[in-house]
Amino acid sequence: MNTYRTLQWDDSTNTLVLLDQRSLPHRIQYVICKDEQQTAEAIRKMVVRGAPAIGAAAAFGLALAAFRCNCQTTEEFLRHIENAAQQLTAARPTAVNLQWALKRIIRKVAEAEGTIEELRRLVLDEARRITDEDVRINQQIGLNALQILPEEINFIHHCNTGALATVDYGTALGIIRTAHEHGRKVFVFVDETRPRLQGAKLTAWELQQLGIPFKVIVDGASGFVMKRFRIDAVVVGCDRVAANGDTANKIGTYNLALAAKAHGVPFYVACPTSTIDLSIANGDLIPIEERDSEEITHLEGKAICPRGTDVFNPAFDVTVAELITAIITENGVCYPPFERSLRGVVHP
Amino acid sequence: MNTYRTLQWDDSTNTLVLLDQRSLPHRIQYVICKDEQQTAEAIRKMVVRGAPAIGAAAAFGLALAAFRCNCQTTEEFLRHIENAAQQLTAARPTAVNLQWALKRIIRKVAEAEGTIEELRRLVLDEARRITDEDVRINQQIGLNALQILPEEINFIHHCNTGALATVDYGTALGIIRTAHEHGRKVFVFVDETRPRLQGAKLTAWELQQLGIPFKVIVDGASGFVMKRFRIDAVVVGCDRVAANGDTANKIGTYNLALAAKAHGVPFYVACPTSTIDLSIANGDLIPIEERDSEEITHLEGKAICPRGTDVFNPAFDVTVAELITAIITENGVCYPPFERSLRGVVHP
Repeated sequence: MNTYRTLQWDDSTNTLVLLDQRSLPHRIQYVICKDEQQTAEAIRKMVVRGAPAIGAAAAFGLALAAFRCNCQTTEEFLRHIENAAQQLTAARPTAVNLQWALKRIIRKVAEAEGTIEELRRLVLDEARRITDEDVRINQQIGLNALQILPEEINFIHHCNTGALATVDYGTALGIIRTAHEHGRKVFVFVDETRPRLQGAKLTAWELQQLGIPFKVIVDGASGFVMKRFRIDAVVVGCDRVAANGDTANKIGTYNLALAAKAHGVPFYVACPTSTIDLSIANGDLIPIEERDSEEITHLEGKAICPRGTDVFNPAFDVTVAELITAIITENGVCYPPFERSLRGVVHP
Repeated sequence: MNTYRTLQWDDSTNTLVLLDQRSLPHRIQYVICKDEQQTAEAIRKMVVRGAPAIGAAAAFGLALAAFRCNCQTTEEFLRHIENAAQQLTAARPTAVNLQWALKRIIRKVAEAEGTIEELRRLVLDEARRITDEDVRINQQIGLNALQILPEEINFIHHCNTGALATVDYGTALGIIRTAHEHGRKVFVFVDETRPRLQGAKLTAWELQQLGIPFKVIVDGASGFVMKRFRIDAVVVGCDRVAANGDTANKIGTYNLALAAKAHGVPFYVACPTSTIDLSIANGDLIPIEERDSEEITHLEGKAICPRGTDVFNPAFDVTVAELITAIITENGVCYPPFERSLRGVVHP
């Protein structure tokens, strides 16, 4: 479907090959991870980003740990991959998909019986299953969204939630893509998404490849765009959704949701059920990662701010459930009250 | 007060010297304008920016036109400077200060009698008066704001509204500065202000020089900052205020105002009365300038977006009056209903 692959397991060398998203859209190059440390580092440095994609990358990181260990007993093996999972989890604290994928694999291993070589295969197979499922889940989210979208749709989209943010296809961008592929008339205003400009760099690139018309805007312009043009839907992805529907997503999402509310524009969160964290009551409890100052003070390696400038650089914000029209999952569209509807799709 | 000057008339050469704000904060260099075309070009290219500063620059641009003309009659002279005023006005359509300054000078010339040399002097004197007044007006806005601000103030500030955006001192940043100089405990979250990053570049630089503590944030983070920290006031400048209080200001202001409303944070507009346009009933009638794509697609000369990316790049947005707590002018603080209170300060 795409000529590039966000992430791929290389069977001949048992390594994980990641498309280096920091070089896009100008250069296509890959980073090869040989163990869990290198995978954690690639996640931390955002070689790979997007909640579903880092979930899948971490799953393969665990497979790398499994293949690289010289364990003698299954207990030792389990301890080894649990340590690796901790390392991978620490790479980025907000997106829950990472923890979800690792827990799922470890549970599988803990319940299994077999030789260490068999357990290794089991880790890799489960990582593969997670990535294969991800594509189908994305496509189903798109199909579910079709039911509630009009024939002509002017979208506003934040960050990047496309094939690059997932194993393939995309979540919020997957919705846009499904609508386009089903013949709906689609136009997208693309939030550039400071500080790392995933919208300007990655979403613009993906939309170009898909032949979907779009314009890039600065994040601060979304309210004015809603005033000036007919906007039918805001679509965003998510990094963690609490039990009450509060949604952590890329910084700037909350301001966008406030603008949508003020203009009566439906605000949709595209959400694989793996991103729902029922163990957390509300958004105040979601840990919010703060990232390096240089993401703000420097651009393309050049200093922008005067030397010594201090910044506050949270990678995510929390959009309160009251601002969300619907959360669209692969198991159905959730409406308020989300306490009930989310539970329904997680345990269908 | 400042070691640099935003703009200055050079008496020895009859030229206008502009601090080139495009090179700040890393290099301090000046652009010399010898006629009205060069001045209009400098305004268009944002060598000088900020509504009060471009008003003053345009006034001196008119003086340049006056000094460079070879007119034989006063009628010819008047026609000549009226043409120059049209050229200068076209440089940037949104900020009304530019038109206000030019109209004020032309009215003065039209009512005056004297030789062409005397009329030339009159244009220059009036341009000087406008710039001298600007500093006093800014200081008075700061003092008026002090009356309604608490002892400890965490501000959010958008764009640049300091000495660089004015002849000296500043409007919204002037309020912050006055509070600081009067011993209030002040902290500022500085919106970086995409696309041209006036916050990250210029406001950060000015605050450093003033010794006022601050952190730069991306524009999309303001809502999250209001959730995470106690914010006492949002302060912004303005490029044109309509009779009903609707306020055109740098793109991103409207989203910031929506966030302030959602969090019950007072939203203050610092506004010299020269920025109030009573001839315009509401914000829908304010012309909104759209600027070059490259402001968004390129950063520091480097392409960010994939080649061929289209953008929507309005330089300003309109904040509706309902979102504004007060408009602070040199003649007093205006509260809703603004139809009445603005009229009171324009014709005191």
